[in-house]
Amino acid sequence: MKQNKALRTLLVCLLCLPILVKGQPPRGPLAPPPKINADKTVTFTYIAPNAKDVKLSGQFLTGGPSAMTKNAQGFWTVTVGPVKPDIYPYNFVVDGINVMDPANEYFFPNERFKGSLLDVPADEPLVHALKDVPHGSVTYEYYPGVQNTTGSLVVYTPPGYDKNKNTKYPVFYLISGTTDTEEAFFKVGKVNLILDNLIAEGKAKPMIIVMPNGNIEARVADQKGGLKPADPAGRESEEAVTRAKNFAGDLVGNVIPYIEKNYRTLTGANNRAIGGFSRGGGETLRTALGNMDKFAYVCTYSAYLSPAEMEKEYKDVAGKPQVTNQKFKLFWVSVGTEDFLYKSTVEFLDYLKAHNVNYKSLITGGGHTWMNVKTYVAATTPLLFK
Amino acid sequence: MKQNKALRTLLVCLLCLPILVKGQPPRGPLAPPPKINADKTVTFTYIAPNAKDVKLSGQFLTGGPSAMTKNAQGFWTVTVGPVKPDIYPYNFVVDGINVMDPANEYFFPNERFKGSLLDVPADEPLVHALKDVPHGSVTYEYYPGVQNTTGSLVVYTPPGYDKNKNTKYPVFYLISGTTDTEEAFFKVGKVNLILDNLIAEGKAKPMIIVMPNGNIEARVADQKGGLKPADPAGRESEEAVTRAKNFAGDLVGNVIPYIEKNYRTLTGANNRAIGGFSRGGGETLRTALGNMDKFAYVCTYSAYLSPAEMEKEYKDVAGKPQVTNQKFKLFWVSVGTEDFLYKSTVEFLDYLKAHNVNYKSLITGGGHTWMNVKTYVAATTPLLFK
Repeated sequence: MKQNKALRTLLVCLLCLPILVKGQPPRGPLAPPPKINADKTVTFTYIAPNAKDVKLSGQFLTGGPSAMTKNAQGFWTVTVGPVKPDIYPYNFVVDGINVMDPANEYFFPNERFKGSLLDVPADEPLVHALKDVPHGSVTYEYYPGVQNTTGSLVVYTPPGYDKNKNTKYPVFYLISGTTDTEEAFFKVGKVNLILDNLIAEGKAKPMIIVMPNGNIEARVADQKGGLKPADPAGRESEEAVTRAKNFAGDLVGNVIPYIEKNYRTLTGANNRAIGGFSRGGGETLRTALGNMDKFAYVCTYSAYLSPAEMEKEYKDVAGKPQVTNQKFKLFWVSVGTEDFLYKSTVEFLDYLKAHNVNYKSLITGGGHTWMNVKTYVAATTPLLFK
Repeated sequence: MKQNKALRTLLVCLLCLPILVKGQPPRGPLAPPPKINADKTVTFTYIAPNAKDVKLSGQFLTGGPSAMTKNAQGFWTVTVGPVKPDIYPYNFVVDGINVMDPANEYFFPNERFKGSLLDVPADEPLVHALKDVPHGSVTYEYYPGVQNTTGSLVVYTPPGYDKNKNTKYPVFYLISGTTDTEEAFFKVGKVNLILDNLIAEGKAKPMIIVMPNGNIEARVADQKGGLKPADPAGRESEEAVTRAKNFAGDLVGNVIPYIEKNYRTLTGANNRAIGGFSRGGGETLRTALGNMDKFAYVCTYSAYLSPAEMEKEYKDVAGKPQVTNQKFKLFWVSVGTEDFLYKSTVEFLDYLKAHNVNYKSLITGGGHTWMNVKTYVAATTPLLFK
């Protein structure tokens, strides 16, 4: 027993030794990445010999951040769960400072917070899992944007796009939320894998998915003299409405023409869908309702417009429901019961109902999270272009 | 004067107020992103009211980390420079803990360290600047990889690739370094913008650039039960040699066939180049010298093979220089004089010289950095396929 302990101590000490590599500067010890155990508990490790307090913060923790324990060598660890299979943002909180997991290459692209991603696979692969099915591609594109700047897009093309030279595809414009970048639906939302899987099962039609940046002001500022990450402003504030209108102008005036010129697209409202999460959902509604001839499919995930804004800006939507119902083949609204926008979203649905505007809704548990976004994407994409 | 001070204090207090957004949880104050001043000095800000010591660490700081100063509201700031225009990794060091810049969306994709990227533009745009020229695309692809796993590639296609349906292109395989992911040459090295600019100026031939992950063990582990970030091992260790051989087998056996099947490529050695940085440079040499019929252009950036390994594994390269010199249209070796691999690289060059193996070399200042990598990419791509 004592021998074992001595051996363990020796091994730990060796681990802690700076790794001396021929000709390279010495490095500190290397933390292991999150370890997913057989029972779906997950063990996290962070190295901070001098820290006084290290916690784990993650959207899989229902009771808030979880305290970690330090061993004699300065390795802080905690095992949590079992964790329900899904992909979750998380970070360490080191003496009050949020820190990404140094040992994990998967991150949440964002203008403000810096989080790592924990992927807990299920025994029966989930809808966003990387499976052995034909895969589409994800392409980063530049397009001529507003104010003579160059805009950024991320574009999913379905499996076979490059082979089926005579096939044209419908397009789903999909907009991410406040402080998310145009990479979020790819890197966090896994829409490419969700579509690969749904298409392989015959559940969704092959489609192109175009992911713009919902904060075109950031891209303009970036090219005209410096970064300008989003300031979260009230969803109904003048700034938010102006931003959404700028966004709508860019999408309709620049992005759609660019995509329809450079990709093999089917055109017309019946071949265009628009959707978005959070701020992107607000932009979805403002873009679709402000351009009633452009999109026949409208999907909002955790977003709403207030009845006041509907009455002021989009009076005909509720005022002429028979026209609205004819134009929209799908008007979808999703939200979680724990979402801080739940109440406002229900008011929006009540408003639509009271005015006989057709819609479909999926109310789930959970909050304003990308776990829910994946669920909503998987629920809505099979309904598009059918 | 007093009035001004009172006003400033009021403004700072307002900035520090949690921003209360209707229906959203209160947020803390938001730090500004790095501000590049007119004289190319740069001002950094980090918010940490409770931290005891905050430093700025960055590859533009020649004298090591720079101390930051805290104001009464807990904003730590420092102005450094003037900074020579380029793109640099940096991070804050908060009570000894490395932290990315929360206000900067641009990051360094890596299996181990987590850094932000500072982009200091030049008055006359640099070779990696986003200019108003035709742009290529960058596509994320899956391919059938080793051990029945799915591999990841990042692929640059030049401007016009989608339009010029009858044009076939040569291919440059470009491999990133230890702990870098397959995104590094795109996100940090800006090879897409460098090529867009060089092609627009008629200096480089339009080509496809394929960026694989140099650590295929990481992708295999990821799909077979958990993350396995790279352990930096000695460049000449058995592990490094085995990893490079596995990589070469995957590149030649899986990646090249996938690319030549799915992209419009010119084939044969004269239409293939291979290059890489650091570990990727070692893999470049081991792949090219172990497959002499596959690549006519070989570029290493901050990498070498030891004379001992050359003699043991690739005896014919120096033993039959006339064959080697006929096979390689370009054998390029670059390194910086401050690179910790400088001495070993010079030994490698001396070995080639002593054996009459033709090569071109570019010895620059600077160290083992991605600033140098961009310089080397811009210097070598004009020499390919000519």
